[in-house]
Amino acid sequence: MTSRALIDAAALRLSGRVRRTPLLNAPLLDRIAGRRVFVKAECLQWTGSFKFRGGWSAVSALPDETRSRGVIAFSSGNHAQGVALAASLHGVPSVILMPSDAPAVKFANTRAYGGEVVVYDRATEDRDAIGAALSADRNLTLIRPYDDPQVIAGQGTVGLEIADQATEAGIASAEVVTCCGGGGLTAGIALALEGRFRVRPAEPAGFDDTARSLASGTPQRNAAASGSICDAIVTPTPGAITFPILQRLCGPGLVVTDDQALRAMALAFAHLRIVLEPGGAVALAACLFDQGLPDTVICTASGGNVDPATFTAALQRFPV
Amino acid sequence: MTSRALIDAAALRLSGRVRRTPLLNAPLLDRIAGRRVFVKAECLQWTGSFKFRGGWSAVSALPDETRSRGVIAFSSGNHAQGVALAASLHGVPSVILMPSDAPAVKFANTRAYGGEVVVYDRATEDRDAIGAALSADRNLTLIRPYDDPQVIAGQGTVGLEIADQATEAGIASAEVVTCCGGGGLTAGIALALEGRFRVRPAEPAGFDDTARSLASGTPQRNAAASGSICDAIVTPTPGAITFPILQRLCGPGLVVTDDQALRAMALAFAHLRIVLEPGGAVALAACLFDQGLPDTVICTASGGNVDPATFTAALQRFPV
Repeated sequence: MTSRALIDAAALRLSGRVRRTPLLNAPLLDRIAGRRVFVKAECLQWTGSFKFRGGWSAVSALPDETRSRGVIAFSSGNHAQGVALAASLHGVPSVILMPSDAPAVKFANTRAYGGEVVVYDRATEDRDAIGAALSADRNLTLIRPYDDPQVIAGQGTVGLEIADQATEAGIASAEVVTCCGGGGLTAGIALALEGRFRVRPAEPAGFDDTARSLASGTPQRNAAASGSICDAIVTPTPGAITFPILQRLCGPGLVVTDDQALRAMALAFAHLRIVLEPGGAVALAACLFDQGLPDTVICTASGGNVDPATFTAALQRFPV
Repeated sequence: MTSRALIDAAALRLSGRVRRTPLLNAPLLDRIAGRRVFVKAECLQWTGSFKFRGGWSAVSALPDETRSRGVIAFSSGNHAQGVALAASLHGVPSVILMPSDAPAVKFANTRAYGGEVVVYDRATEDRDAIGAALSADRNLTLIRPYDDPQVIAGQGTVGLEIADQATEAGIASAEVVTCCGGGGLTAGIALALEGRFRVRPAEPAGFDDTARSLASGTPQRNAAASGSICDAIVTPTPGAITFPILQRLCGPGLVVTDDQALRAMALAFAHLRIVLEPGGAVALAACLFDQGLPDTVICTASGGNVDPATFTAALQRFPV
């Protein structure tokens, strides 16, 4: 079970291996938001998202012999890159199953980080069957994107850093807003900040399974499986391990529109000089545009793996 | 005279007021460069460039009574914003003389930071005369952009941080490449790193007055006063205070083309997820594309105040 102790242990394994990302802010952004907004810039993490923390935590927690056989992950995005680099830096192989329609740059990056990419056709092939066969054949360990205690513990180290950096910045009271897909980052941060700051998950409109699950008290599913520009954080339903943690520790979920996420990207470009992908900007969007948050908020800017066309479109649509 | 002691004193005044920016790197960027490249991301500094350090250093060094009357600066860009915010945070007025053809966003930001913007017409009005009249009338202190010991000392704190962060990253040997206009940043860093790392100034082609001055041993001037996309670092000739420091401490200057600067912006977007302006990307461009540098280099990414059209053009021209 994931606990604060597991996060502290992960932090020791991650020390010196994972970047301590800065907590950014900007006077002109505060003026737009009408509150103080601090931004934990995980887009500056190796591989461009917090996923490298969970990847490193999980790979480093394996017994030597298990690890040496290698790991496997299913992902077209940030988890793929995080696991591939973590495995490479441990000197062990990784197999990443990616759908054939994933963006070319994500194939290239995952391979560049040392991942062995296995491509499958979403329409005609069974991902789980291919993965199971590969795992059995080569005795690979599956690293799940969020429903894994060591992955959650790795993401929770973001929360430990937020606690330290909030103290350095003199922040006594705040809510922490997280970009939420399956809930690994949100659960980890909520555990790390338990008793200090309340955490609020943020999601894109139409894919607000976590907000509805928290409101109703039981796991809800999204009507659609895809169709948001926030591809990195679209999951069908909260995780079996993550949801009970969110239920116990988080405040109500926040929901932002695609346009609000794109505008947050443009404002982060202009005032923080960081690159965010849409799914990595939803928490910032909530902090900028949601009326129901307190005077001081801290949000995760969780990823920056965005193709130039999407980024350019955000800048053109929302001139600042 | 600027010295290591003056930089250490500035660092004390800047502590907690100026952001300690991260030293970033990325495996895929190293692969493109063929060497290890570490990037001191001063674009993440308040106001989007290292100029806030010099502004804070100079304003905070003034005697209370002098400071309370206010400061004045001539700038259409990063120095304007740095001085305006530093003055505001000290609770004193600032007057910034800006040419009427400066970008709208720079007027807006300088005003938003609390600067009183006085606009003049480059073609028909005498900036120095207007500034002298205003200064005399209101007893304002002029903060020069680079030929001021306290400004150089403030920029030198970038060098102190590089030294600490290089130690943390286990970097024993490296050259440090700086974006160089009037030489304030370069001189400050060279003094801070004296005896540790050699500093190499980088400039845009056609505006390489520092490289030619270092090569010839006497200050050289650029043929043109403007016309580079690297507007932030175009100055006619090295500073009277900065050049002797550069002569004593720096290695040969490096020169990059506008296209190399734009490509460095696109690569920083893709692999570091930071936003750079062309003038803030010339040192990174040298580290990526110059064949004459050692295996490990550290560069300043000195500013990120770029208009969306220029940034978009860089991404479209150099797809990654």
